[in-house]
Amino acid sequence: MSDFRKQALDYHAYPTPGKISIELTKSAETSKDLALAYSPGVAEPVRAIAENPDDVYRYTAKGNMVAVISNGTAILGLGNLGPMASKPVMEGKALLFKRFAGLDAIDIEVTHRTTQDFINTVANIADSFGGVNLEDIKAPECFEIEEALVERCDVPIFHDDQHGTAIVTAAGLLNALEIQGKELRKAQIVCLGAGAAAIACMELLIKCGAQREHIYMLDSKGVIHTRREDLNPYKSLFANNTDKRTLEDVITEADVFVGVSGPDLLSPDALKLMAAKPIIFACSNPDPEIKPELAHEVRDDLIMATGRSDYPNQVNNVLCFPFIFRGALDVRARAINDEMKLAAVEAIRQLAKEPVPEGVLKAAGVDKLEFGVDYIIPKPLDPRLKTRVAKAVAEAAVATGAARIELPKNYMAE
Amino acid sequence: MSDFRKQALDYHAYPTPGKISIELTKSAETSKDLALAYSPGVAEPVRAIAENPDDVYRYTAKGNMVAVISNGTAILGLGNLGPMASKPVMEGKALLFKRFAGLDAIDIEVTHRTTQDFINTVANIADSFGGVNLEDIKAPECFEIEEALVERCDVPIFHDDQHGTAIVTAAGLLNALEIQGKELRKAQIVCLGAGAAAIACMELLIKCGAQREHIYMLDSKGVIHTRREDLNPYKSLFANNTDKRTLEDVITEADVFVGVSGPDLLSPDALKLMAAKPIIFACSNPDPEIKPELAHEVRDDLIMATGRSDYPNQVNNVLCFPFIFRGALDVRARAINDEMKLAAVEAIRQLAKEPVPEGVLKAAGVDKLEFGVDYIIPKPLDPRLKTRVAKAVAEAAVATGAARIELPKNYMAE
Repeated sequence: MSDFRKQALDYHAYPTPGKISIELTKSAETSKDLALAYSPGVAEPVRAIAENPDDVYRYTAKGNMVAVISNGTAILGLGNLGPMASKPVMEGKALLFKRFAGLDAIDIEVTHRTTQDFINTVANIADSFGGVNLEDIKAPECFEIEEALVERCDVPIFHDDQHGTAIVTAAGLLNALEIQGKELRKAQIVCLGAGAAAIACMELLIKCGAQREHIYMLDSKGVIHTRREDLNPYKSLFANNTDKRTLEDVITEADVFVGVSGPDLLSPDALKLMAAKPIIFACSNPDPEIKPELAHEVRDDLIMATGRSDYPNQVNNVLCFPFIFRGALDVRARAINDEMKLAAVEAIRQLAKEPVPEGVLKAAGVDKLEFGVDYIIPKPLDPRLKTRVAKAVAEAAVATGAARIELPKNYMAE
Repeated sequence: MSDFRKQALDYHAYPTPGKISIELTKSAETSKDLALAYSPGVAEPVRAIAENPDDVYRYTAKGNMVAVISNGTAILGLGNLGPMASKPVMEGKALLFKRFAGLDAIDIEVTHRTTQDFINTVANIADSFGGVNLEDIKAPECFEIEEALVERCDVPIFHDDQHGTAIVTAAGLLNALEIQGKELRKAQIVCLGAGAAAIACMELLIKCGAQREHIYMLDSKGVIHTRREDLNPYKSLFANNTDKRTLEDVITEADVFVGVSGPDLLSPDALKLMAAKPIIFACSNPDPEIKPELAHEVRDDLIMATGRSDYPNQVNNVLCFPFIFRGALDVRARAINDEMKLAAVEAIRQLAKEPVPEGVLKAAGVDKLEFGVDYIIPKPLDPRLKTRVAKAVAEAAVATGAARIELPKNYMAE
């Protein structure tokens, strides 16, 4: 067994199995405590909530609790390994929610027969929580699932593999375009990959100003175009009326490459065909579509981002999901709408332009971080992410009527 | 607002809403920690579980995690107030699981249309947990729900309102019969109430040796008998072929009265009609079927138990449910079968016959507790309950093949 493999297994196994536990936030020592916490005292909050449903936020943990829900059909890059195999990832997500945003999150793995069965199960339990983070659910079912749940549920439903990725990608890409002196509205974009993350990224870029007809999306069969008859409805939205068929065809003179596909699928020769000052988001993990060293050998005018922590410009969902939920839950939002997502994009984007505190440099193990080709996205351990993103999201929720309450006083003051 | 009401509401609201939170059991400070807890390290336990499903107990929190699930159709004695209003009770149950047995428990409130919809929802999420505690679900649906879930799920399903109550009642009743010099096999039993707890109590007493034809059960319409046509299938099992119609009819010369109904429904005159050395379990809460003071005025040969902590012989589910789950989960049981329930009865029963440690006397605020008319059931704060009941239950699980693993070495050694 490799050393890292053993460390990872030991970390999960000892001293107790798994990564999370339930703790009590109230004293439960004396008989008096128990009389308040359970019978007969507990009847009081029960009555209060029955009279005024919003009191559930006042007397229970709901308002700080996120459910992390999966069916294990697309676990990391490992595929469909079933609900139980996804449990360590979902507990890991719960760990990140707590570590980064102080949110309580519990994992729930769903066994189901049909997609409708999954939707129904999640909808039936969603009210127990302040919000639901969907995770590692394969495309195209994930789109139908999220749409149906957003429609049925009165709490935020957020498929992080789609929107977390999309938000961080959009933030980085907008900054990269700014540095390269390009406009999103005019940018020619190639998206290699047509799964959940790819489609969500492109949809969000369109909301940011990208033109749908400037986007070429490719799946395992090549360019998605209007004459293909094997497309699901979500891919169909990106079908171009074009004769171009291959990556080489579409990458010629492209400004932006977004890869959410697999290792080494962007060749140096293809990279050479791109327009001046290209932008490469090679997000396949752990091995990107083109290695940064190789890309830089071929072109000296590019900006490059990957999913890896050992290169500059890491596209990492943890920049977004803990804080978008933090902001949404803090105003008891009913949903995470587009305006809230765009507010998160803008907050993440702007943070990269600010001077970086000493502590963040230290945590990142670097001497300097300055807005530019090697720093277009904030670092995951930047504590300002919480205050900036949560506040922007909460404000957008209030402004759009998604919030049940106003912003708390001095909310996220730094 | 009354002082107690205010205290109960404040306890639930401050300093943070609710009673539980999620905490991390592993370090999540450094980048190294995060690389083990989440991507890329988390792929290792994922792969391990995909290869060997039992590894989910090794690498995740499942084995110590209980779901406390309700639909809010029978909250305490308050009725059907809906899923959200049940949340403080379910969190309270989670608190008791942690406080008494060190189990992690999370509450889930289910919104549903049909009973089948509820069953399906719980069955679909049950595998996420080591076991499922059903709570505050109204009769007769609770019977159908539990039966179906036991059939479908591979983890213990336990409706505490039924079986927790039944186990503690049976333990106390067996001791009371012993003290009164009576045999369960011959005892004439009146059960006032025909809901979930009543039916479960009587079924368990039959498994302990009581004769079905010696039991008279009454619902709000009087004695349940074979000529009634308004009975659900669960009540029908207790229909006697008899001309007796009223409580007065059946209580004459009865040995045992079990009340799970409402306040003051057993009159002093009815009590006078009972056989010599009667046993009264007046478990309606907070106000029993007959006040102990009044009962003792009428008869000096009785043994009396109630649901209240301020009288001797409190029938309290907390004597059972934390420990039956503790034992079941510690051997990764697939179910909580009859043998495990009977093992819990016996363990609770025997503990009442042992000398009581100083600490328990102190916690109970009494000078002396000695097996007898005023001490037939152990006290809730007796720390020996955990070791005795959990061990007995785990041993029964292993003996009956319900356990996935053998008893851990020196399990629950005192």
